This record gives sequence, C-alpha cells and structure tokens, in this order.
Amino acid sequence: MKFEIPKIDEKLFVLAEERLGNLTKPKGSLGRLEDFAKRLAVQKNVHFPEIKRKAVFVFAGDHGVTEEGVSAYPKEVTYQMVYNFLNGGAAINVLCRFAGCDCIVVDVGVDYDFEEQKGLLVKKVLRGTRNFTKGPAMDRKEAERCIEIGRELAHGCAEQGYDILVPGDMGIGNTTASSAVISALLKKPVKEVVGKGTGIDDETLKRKIEVIEKGIKINRPDPEDAVDVLAKVGGAEIGAIAGFVIGAAEKRIPVILDGLISCAGALVAAKLESKILDFLFAGHKSEEKGQWAVLSYLKLEPILDLGMRLGEGTGGVLATLIVEASLKLYREMATFDEASVSKKLE
Amino acid sequence: MKFEIPKIDEKLFVLAEERLGNLTKPKGSLGRLEDFAKRLAVQKNVHFPEIKRKAVFVFAGDHGVTEEGVSAYPKEVTYQMVYNFLNGGAAINVLCRFAGCDCIVVDVGVDYDFEEQKGLLVKKVLRGTRNFTKGPAMDRKEAERCIEIGRELAHGCAEQGYDILVPGDMGIGNTTASSAVISALLKKPVKEVVGKGTGIDDETLKRKIEVIEKGIKINRPDPEDAVDVLAKVGGAEIGAIAGFVIGAAEKRIPVILDGLISCAGALVAAKLESKILDFLFAGHKSEEKGQWAVLSYLKLEPILDLGMRLGEGTGGVLATLIVEASLKLYREMATFDEASVSKKLE
Repeated sequence: MKFEIPKIDEKLFVLAEERLGNLTKPKGSLGRLEDFAKRLAVQKNVHFPEIKRKAVFVFAGDHGVTEEGVSAYPKEVTYQMVYNFLNGGAAINVLCRFAGCDCIVVDVGVDYDFEEQKGLLVKKVLRGTRNFTKGPAMDRKEAERCIEIGRELAHGCAEQGYDILVPGDMGIGNTTASSAVISALLKKPVKEVVGKGTGIDDETLKRKIEVIEKGIKINRPDPEDAVDVLAKVGGAEIGAIAGFVIGAAEKRIPVILDGLISCAGALVAAKLESKILDFLFAGHKSEEKGQWAVLSYLKLEPILDLGMRLGEGTGGVLATLIVEASLKLYREMATFDEASVSKKLE
Repeated sequence: MKFEIPKIDEKLFVLAEERLGNLTKPKGSLGRLEDFAKRLAVQKNVHFPEIKRKAVFVFAGDHGVTEEGVSAYPKEVTYQMVYNFLNGGAAINVLCRFAGCDCIVVDVGVDYDFEEQKGLLVKKVLRGTRNFTKGPAMDRKEAERCIEIGRELAHGCAEQGYDILVPGDMGIGNTTASSAVISALLKKPVKEVVGKGTGIDDETLKRKIEVIEKGIKINRPDPEDAVDVLAKVGGAEIGAIAGFVIGAAEKRIPVILDGLISCAGALVAAKLESKILDFLFAGHKSEEKGQWAVLSYLKLEPILDLGMRLGEGTGGVLATLIVEASLKLYREMATFDEASVSKKLE
C-alpha cells in the first residue's frame, strides 16, 4: 500500500509564530493554544487557516473474540448503539450538537443488517471479525479493504469541505482487539497495554489479558507488517480508522484522535506511513493504558485529560472546541499596532 | 462582613448520580464530566440544571507597586487593554464570541478616566493602589468597598439570569499583588508562590520577590484577616473578584475561576466564608505557581491544563465549554430504556 502525504512548509510555521508574537498578549501566554494554531497553519498550508466544517466518523464493527467473555456488555449492544447514534441519543450525538460537528456512522463490520439511511453508511466488509483465539480475525484482503474504505471516506470529506475530522468507534470487544494490535505493534507485554474497557471486573480483566496473549501466540502477527497485525488480531473499525487517518493526511485535513480504538487505528496508520503524524492531534488522555502507550510512541500530547473512557469519538469531538478556539484567537485577536497597546519594555 | 451562602442538598447529588447511571454509556465513562454535572445539579438545586447565559467580568485596576519595576509591560497597558476589550480585539473577546459568553469590563481601580459605555462599568474605588513597599496598597474601607462592588455585581447577574460566571482580570502589576496576597494568606515563602507574570526575565523575577517580601515585612498583614491582607498588599480587582465569588455563591451561581488573580480573589473569598467552595470550579491550571498553591489549598482540580498564563478570564471562559458540555450530556443523552440498549452483563 502506497500513500502520498503532502510535505510540510516550515515557512508557514515561522509566519504563524510572527503573527502570534504581534497579538495583544504577552508572548507565548496562550500556551499550547499557540502551538495548535501554528500546526493548523502548517497542516492546511495557509497563513490564515479556518475551521468551517467538522465531522466525526463513528466506525462500527463486531468482534468474534467477545465469545471469550472479555466485555462487560453483550454483543448486540453494537447494533443497538448504532440505532442510538441514528436517533441522536448517544453521548457522541450530544457533543456533536454542542460542538457543531457532523456525525456519520459507518458500518464496516457489524453483525447485523442495516438499511442505509441518513447518517449511516453501510460499508460492511464482514459480519464481525472471527474469534482471534482460534485463528486470524480477518484475512489480509479484508483488512486492506477496511483501510481502503476509511481512506476513501476521508477523501470524500475533502470534497465536501471538511476542515477537521475525528475518527470514532463503536464495537463491543474492540478494546480487546485494540490492545492486541498495540501490544503486537509496540512489542509490549499485553498487561502493559490493556485496561478495563467498558468496566469489567478484575477476573474478566485477567481473562482479557489471557485471551489477547493467546490470540498473539496462535496467530503470530508480524510487528513489522501493520496490515498483518490488523488482520490477525485487529478489527474492521480499527482498519477503517487507520485508512481514515491516512486519507485525511493525504488531503491535508487535521485529525483529532479520540481514545484507545482511535489510537490503535492511528498506530496502524503511522506504521504504514509515518508522515501522517504531521496531521494528528491527540484529543484527550483516556483511562486506557494502551492509549497512553500509543500517544507516547507517537509523541502526541493529549489536549484534554478528563478521565473519559467512552469512545465513540467523544473525547476527540470535545477537543475540537479547544483546537477551534486556538484558531479563532490566532485569526481574530488585534495586534499591538491595531489596538494601540504599548509593547513589552526592553 | 457577613454573607449567607445557601446550603447544599445531598439528595440532588444522589439523584443526579442515578440519572448518570441510566444513560447509554458504561457507568462513570464520562469521567470528570459526570462530576461536573452532579455538582451543577447540587449548586443550582434542581434535578435538571441548565446553562443559558454566561458572562465573564473583567475587573481592571492599577498597581502602585509597578513603580518598583516588577512588570514586563508599562503601566498604561492597563487602560489601553480596557479599550482593546471594548473594541473586541483581546483574547477574552475572541473566546467570549466563540463560547457564547458576555464580556463586561469593570473599572474598579484603573488610573485613567473612562466614560461609562457599553460593556464597561465604571465603579472606581481608587486610581490605582498605592505602592505597597511604602505602606498599605489600600485602606480597609477601600478594600471592603472593592469586595462590596464585586458582590453587588454578582447579585445583579442573578437578576439578569446568568447561570455561570467567570471572574477575569486586567492590571499591570497584578501578579505581584496576587502573589503577595497568596503568600500572606497561605503563610508560604514568597518564592514558592511567585512566577514570571507576563514574561519577566530572571533579574526582574528576583526583584519581584524582594519587592513582595518588603511589602509584607513593612505592612505586616494579618493572615487571619483576609480584608487586612487584601488592603495592605492586594489590589482593587482582587477584592472585587473576592466579592464577586461570594455574591455568586449567595445566589447559587457556579463560578469558574481563571488564573492567578482570579484564584487570589477566590482565596480571599474562601477565607471570609469557606462555604463558597461548594460553588467553585477551577477553569484551568496556569503557569503561575501561586495559582497551583491556591488550587491545592482549596482542593480544586483544574479542568484544563494548556500552559496558559494570560489572565483576563481566558482560561475560565474556555473551561465553560467543558462544563456546559457535561450538562448537555447529562440532560440530553438517552437512557438504556429509552434507546432499547441492553444493560451491563451481571
């Protein structure tokens, strides 16, 4: 798989820094908001970038590994939550309404037959992955198809004028698959990248660890081959997120990551093409250790840290508000000259 | 000075927690957002609180101690920035437009003659405080008058239907006064609660510390008497913020604090009446150590941590978005029953 990620023009970074230095505030006093604005200028390759249209894509898929009793919720919650998204009752819907963000649900692998409808794209690659304790979750072609779907959707976003994108997720069992992908790709012991997901007890956590260890042992995913890892122990939504992140970077659309699943997808993307990193923001620090491991590996500092662990894209969408605020400040504040304010004493 | 702070009804906390447990998400998965929603229910004393109207009050004042060369900016920047606020060009204006928050500037002690105009209330107690290295910054009556002004403004906000308030500040020299107040009230060495303010160099920082130490030595403020501390080494805007925080609590309006000056005001308020703490949120963690000392003393955990050190209320207004989001989630999410989503496996 080959991707073309645009180059970064450092001159725009310098120009943005100059502007920030002339605004009516002590230099650097907006802290990380100044970094966000500078990065946006570079990402969008213009001196005065704008955010006009935002979207979260909630990629949904089922996981065969739920047979092993790794989740606190029954499998049917995946499709039930898809309906909740379509009816506007989920957390992601509320946050999207509040943040002025479009919400598009994508069925990439749910074990349920949906009719295509407003807000839902049916791009099903499979009806749930296979139980990875008994063999690969997907074959290589399926994994590649998931990536391609996400990538095409991001390209479509460019045509529709989206300025910023958040990859979200829904899928009972997907913290198990995500931790498996992260463990395999970062070559870290499973117990260092696994968490309690939707809120399992200690006994189930122990089982979750054993299940992931078994999946990795049986399938022997190749850490140098991200598609192999994705296919063997990953999931459809993780693959679609990886492709989505790549497709967005190809079109210079900044991506704000959410939690564990979002970050597992971004890790797959970064392993396929490290240049995508120029276009990534970490929306928040979740409660999942595996997410911290990815953020640390990708050298991304989270924008928010509110103890969230819900997924769906919720932390990412909330963080769009902060990123957007940084750009408004950058664009709209008066300079010292414009406002006739005296500059710093020399 | 006597204040009547309403009592908290713990039943509302339990009711809010029950609702949060029935929403379509794993229990507790919204992290601190759940705490914010619960606190708002208790603060506003209703099961389904709403935020309809927000305001930041930017209290402006000058500081005689700027004669000692403690700031990176000349004194006239205080009044120049007031004009910048009125013209909509400052950071706080941009954030207010973005967050849907009203911005009211209050001259409590600027050394400049303003005409009262839209967006500016002239409530001048003095034309800048006196240089506290040579005697008290204010007399006790002036300090009390500042508190009373802030308190009356907050009461007016209740009449106008404001649901949430942010106390902001403008005043060259006011990090010096705030650190002095914090050092005196918390009985901490000056160097532990002082920072670089608008961006002074190491030499000026050393002088700033000496100046505060001298001010405290000469005036001997009584740590058990917050009004005495405020008068001797504080400032008009710090006093007004203290009163504003108290007045808001009296009317059950939650307050989101900003940085060092906002927190110095809240500390004075808490020393006068500790029950106000039920109504406070810490908007963000600033770059000033003195602010951390207050947050730690008041046991407030900041909502945002973005390396900001601008004041004006900027961090507080940005944080209103997060607090508001928590309430939208609490009010608008579907319950498991409403959405026909299966509950957690037992």
